[in-house]
Amino acid sequence: MATIIPLEKQREVHRRQHSEALEVLSSLVAEDMAAVNQLIIQRMESRVPLVPELAGHIIAAGGKRLRPILTLASAKLCGYQGSRHHKLAACVEFIHTATLLHDDVVDASDLRRGGPSANALFGNQASVLVGDFLFSRAFQLMVEDGSIDVLRILSNASAIIAEGEVLQLTTTNDSTTSEQSYLEVIRAKTAELFAAACRIGAVVGARPAVEEEALRTFGLNLGIAFQIVDDVLDYSAEKLQFGKTVGDDFREGKITLPVILAIHRGNEAERAFWHRTLDEQDQRDGDLTHAQDLLQRHNALRDAIDRARHYGAIARDALGLFADHPIRKSLLDIIDFTVEREF
Amino acid sequence: MATIIPLEKQREVHRRQHSEALEVLSSLVAEDMAAVNQLIIQRMESRVPLVPELAGHIIAAGGKRLRPILTLASAKLCGYQGSRHHKLAACVEFIHTATLLHDDVVDASDLRRGGPSANALFGNQASVLVGDFLFSRAFQLMVEDGSIDVLRILSNASAIIAEGEVLQLTTTNDSTTSEQSYLEVIRAKTAELFAAACRIGAVVGARPAVEEEALRTFGLNLGIAFQIVDDVLDYSAEKLQFGKTVGDDFREGKITLPVILAIHRGNEAERAFWHRTLDEQDQRDGDLTHAQDLLQRHNALRDAIDRARHYGAIARDALGLFADHPIRKSLLDIIDFTVEREF
Repeated sequence: MATIIPLEKQREVHRRQHSEALEVLSSLVAEDMAAVNQLIIQRMESRVPLVPELAGHIIAAGGKRLRPILTLASAKLCGYQGSRHHKLAACVEFIHTATLLHDDVVDASDLRRGGPSANALFGNQASVLVGDFLFSRAFQLMVEDGSIDVLRILSNASAIIAEGEVLQLTTTNDSTTSEQSYLEVIRAKTAELFAAACRIGAVVGARPAVEEEALRTFGLNLGIAFQIVDDVLDYSAEKLQFGKTVGDDFREGKITLPVILAIHRGNEAERAFWHRTLDEQDQRDGDLTHAQDLLQRHNALRDAIDRARHYGAIARDALGLFADHPIRKSLLDIIDFTVEREF
Repeated sequence: MATIIPLEKQREVHRRQHSEALEVLSSLVAEDMAAVNQLIIQRMESRVPLVPELAGHIIAAGGKRLRPILTLASAKLCGYQGSRHHKLAACVEFIHTATLLHDDVVDASDLRRGGPSANALFGNQASVLVGDFLFSRAFQLMVEDGSIDVLRILSNASAIIAEGEVLQLTTTNDSTTSEQSYLEVIRAKTAELFAAACRIGAVVGARPAVEEEALRTFGLNLGIAFQIVDDVLDYSAEKLQFGKTVGDDFREGKITLPVILAIHRGNEAERAFWHRTLDEQDQRDGDLTHAQDLLQRHNALRDAIDRARHYGAIARDALGLFADHPIRKSLLDIIDFTVEREF
């Protein structure tokens, strides 16, 4: 006879299991990651003290280091034995950090991962310029590595990320944004760097094109799933554990998948509500709660997660090409961790 | 018997001669520059229409295209016959444009070259992100070219530029800034890109290290002279012809060479004036005029130009290595044009 476990308890167990997935993957590349962290600290140095102060603030704020971990794990999955991937993983983290710094300026965010954002502490001016520095430093590291393939992959990804961010600007406060436009934005601004981070593992491992392509597919689709879930978390109360604030996207009028689904499924009055709150930025007490009610009523959060599962499935199949390996197993768990992390 | 020519007339003639120097150099690389302009327009394209709109605004606003012209001229001086330098000159202009976009955001400037700045027209957010895009696009172009030497030169220059901009932030509103700090700022933020633009000519021309080094020396010192004169022009009434506004640096509290000289040569009361206006940003009617009087009283503008001439002389001697050539002659005239352009 199965014991009945309360729903809260089930969720708690589920959540713990999935957080553990990232810890397991981290532990598989722990030695490499230590080298990467050392490189990050070493290479954000500058004769201008404000540079490492500001960069150190955002990099120390932690985050999961998911992207460099993906580079390290992919290289390991490809049987790579050297140490080139340390520098390249640091590159990936620098590019990511540069975009975070610029994003926070563009979004005028005061918080990042539960603490004050760099722009709140050091000002927008320094954040823009230190972002530029980290970006340039990333390219210096790639040049030191010397692979034109890596340079191509990451310069292409960087241009696409910037385009994606501009595209997102033009969809913000436009509640008529289509699901397709949304997908194009998140693919560009988030998923391309995941894809690049993974591909680089195959490049340093000198693996055949088909494996590089498989890792690109894995990273791209994991990235899309990751961003959809991130956008869902912005409306779900339980995400406070991630050190974020509920309703940031709503307050800024960002048009994310849950909202797009609710708008498409809503009536005229509901569309008028979204138009007033998101496009005209006319927000009153109780509007966020009402928005959450509408998302609930139309199953928008649940169905957005379903969409994320689709991309998770593509990522999963992409790894089918690789032989059984603890890293492969762990990457598969990461997909689950990503898609289910809100429950 | 020499006819006496009025001073105004002399200056007019002088000014025309020196503007002509850049026109002569431009005409020597006119065909190449046409190819570069075409590449610039072609490669700022994006599926996101706001990208070329904004980038087109600042690039069309013109400017002198001095940096890409330096790349083309250096390549030609090095006897290069191919077309690689077109792409690399476009890179240099993209990097320069990206820094202009970010500078205008950081300085909250409403004007650029006499017209509205990109951030005034399109907003700070788009300016930050399109700057990132142009920067990434520059690296894509370098990767297409495939030279790791060029990538090294321009990624190093980019990191130094960003550091220089951060350093400038920390010296702004600090009237105790030393001349040495000022020199370090302008070397980083301006001169390193001039140096890189020139070096690239020797790299594509596959010239010996000594010539690459000579062109680097030429570019670096020309860049320092250029920035000093630019900073002098900010206080001299006649510069309106360049489409700038007198007193921008004063209003922003930027600590430039003329001010540093006046502060060092001034008395306590004068230092208090500079402290109030530049550090505390407490500016009243007549302060700019008083600042200009102080600069005049201490010969600060004249002596700043003298300092610029020193760097111009170094740039001049660096070209001594090259055989006589119309380009060499024209580059020498550019030094004069740069140093004397305010008279």
